[in-house]
Amino acid sequence: MTTSPESEHPIKAYGYAARDTSGSLSPLTFSRRDTGEKDVRFKVLFCGICHTDLHFVKDEFGITKYPITPGHEIVGVVTEVGCKVEKFKVGDKVGVGCLVGSCRSCQSCATDHEQHCPKTVGTYGTPDFDGTQTHGGFSDHMVTDEHFVLRWPENLPLDSGAPLLCAGITTYSPLRYFGLDKPGTKVGVVGLGGLGHAAVKFAKAFGAEVTVFSTSPAKEQEALEGLKADHFINSKDEHQMQAAYGTLNGIIDTVSANHPTAPLLSALAPFGKLVLLGAPPKPLEVATISLIIGNKTVAGSGAGGIKETQEMLDFAAEHGITADVEVIPIDYVNTAMERLIKSDVKYRFVIDVANSLKAE
Amino acid sequence: MTTSPESEHPIKAYGYAARDTSGSLSPLTFSRRDTGEKDVRFKVLFCGICHTDLHFVKDEFGITKYPITPGHEIVGVVTEVGCKVEKFKVGDKVGVGCLVGSCRSCQSCATDHEQHCPKTVGTYGTPDFDGTQTHGGFSDHMVTDEHFVLRWPENLPLDSGAPLLCAGITTYSPLRYFGLDKPGTKVGVVGLGGLGHAAVKFAKAFGAEVTVFSTSPAKEQEALEGLKADHFINSKDEHQMQAAYGTLNGIIDTVSANHPTAPLLSALAPFGKLVLLGAPPKPLEVATISLIIGNKTVAGSGAGGIKETQEMLDFAAEHGITADVEVIPIDYVNTAMERLIKSDVKYRFVIDVANSLKAE
Repeated sequence: MTTSPESEHPIKAYGYAARDTSGSLSPLTFSRRDTGEKDVRFKVLFCGICHTDLHFVKDEFGITKYPITPGHEIVGVVTEVGCKVEKFKVGDKVGVGCLVGSCRSCQSCATDHEQHCPKTVGTYGTPDFDGTQTHGGFSDHMVTDEHFVLRWPENLPLDSGAPLLCAGITTYSPLRYFGLDKPGTKVGVVGLGGLGHAAVKFAKAFGAEVTVFSTSPAKEQEALEGLKADHFINSKDEHQMQAAYGTLNGIIDTVSANHPTAPLLSALAPFGKLVLLGAPPKPLEVATISLIIGNKTVAGSGAGGIKETQEMLDFAAEHGITADVEVIPIDYVNTAMERLIKSDVKYRFVIDVANSLKAE
Repeated sequence: MTTSPESEHPIKAYGYAARDTSGSLSPLTFSRRDTGEKDVRFKVLFCGICHTDLHFVKDEFGITKYPITPGHEIVGVVTEVGCKVEKFKVGDKVGVGCLVGSCRSCQSCATDHEQHCPKTVGTYGTPDFDGTQTHGGFSDHMVTDEHFVLRWPENLPLDSGAPLLCAGITTYSPLRYFGLDKPGTKVGVVGLGGLGHAAVKFAKAFGAEVTVFSTSPAKEQEALEGLKADHFINSKDEHQMQAAYGTLNGIIDTVSANHPTAPLLSALAPFGKLVLLGAPPKPLEVATISLIIGNKTVAGSGAGGIKETQEMLDFAAEHGITADVEVIPIDYVNTAMERLIKSDVKYRFVIDVANSLKAE
């Protein structure tokens, strides 16, 4: 069966999509399903741009089906709810992150880790339960099962809060899981981009003593003054790295480029955890003995489940945590993508969808 | 200052030591210190042979100082106690494992993880606080600060219990630390040697469902019938490995030879932990994405602290856990070492020191 994105569902939708591996985004008319019994339909207000969007529009994971409408840091306002929706009403502010579906019955779903369900439905570019491709938040509206819709806290800004739905939960979750959320805990953050700056903010809010590692000395001032990190280490400076030897309880490593991990493992105290959020092209190489001596851990961590994402949003609202963002109109998105490649943004682009996306 | 091992302390001692990188062990007369205020002096009854002993006598770590008297799975009977000793009296059965000293004041010591103290004193082959080299349990007697002496549980056999002081705690500790000690937890054990067979016994005692991975199909019967493991997987059989995909909460990997870890990571369920106890010569190579998808962990783990070792011994006594051992006289030790290289032992050699070691 071949149907066009425009006609496969009854409700007209439009957004910005990439059509080929150039990754260039342009207007696309597509369609969304009717509001089901448990569905929440909402108008998209803001949507963050995540590095993953860049990977997907350029098919860097080799799994992209075009056209693809990215965006998984989505904030909106409810316009319609299904007859069995319990958590939301028209006018509510809501968020949607990386997930819009899962089986709801497996062990992962039963323990609020929907992100690990084998039948998970990604917010864009993956098959929905009806076989059609999902479309993300670079679009006029969304329709999502209420289980995957987040309550937007009253006092959390809509624009600068949007990136929390991916960059926020991806850093909050490992800080919590690995017990790096206790006052006085010594936490390192490697890389000061979208994820890194969120990691610093959450770690500081937990009361941790935060050390930022960066290869760019120019980031020292941003780290210490802008983000209130306690220490800055130029990770190319061997002397500074040695001074950190054996001191940290955990390190959140946000870097997606190849980089040495041995010096980071050396910076860990006994029982320290090196948590990798980025996936460099080359495999990680670790001398096993460097893990055994000191009972050290290397772990990977992705985004969290829905329950934890809600908890993170509530925590962010309570502690005044938002992303540092540059708000842009949607027709700037291709330029933004180019700048993102060069890390030329502090620290996240957020598209003002509602005020800049117009139907063709 | 050059003093001979024979004269540096007032109390004559004798044992079996290696003199060069051949690793060949022969009788050595040396000396031990007077019984200090907090010291426990005990006659060695049994001492296990650990693979680490083999590394040390052949200087495979490049840090051995000869002569070296190995042995860190030591069970004995107290013959004298210092005036301030509180926990022991003459006649008590006791054990000493991998550690005989630490600073007692650092963060690691304060939290009962003496094994990570920067000033730790190993049971043999490392400098003691007075600068002399320590001598291990392949000897007639030991003198050890009571803090590093374990109470031997009443009903724990002296010979087959001895290996618990290293192989036991090294497997018990990560099962506990990583939460693999809950009934119903699915635990894999890679390699069925001294460590592996202890890991199976502890995991079963915790109520886990245990899968043994081995490259040797001949071990299936031993694993299932002898050790009561629930499942056996020939890790060279791709079909069997695929069947285990995504099922295990944790894997205790005891193998010291190079071996692929990717299939083991695939066998982990979300949040699963691969715990490495052996240190293969080649560095571990891991695709970071295989950790991120499923929030997986690779960790190293060594022996535990004194408090946990006591807890382990008490648990072993309560649950009837001992090592499967072949008891040998001390003059068989060189043959035993040769057989150990070929993994020709089920599963641990234990030297009957008291009945076979005679003063020259």
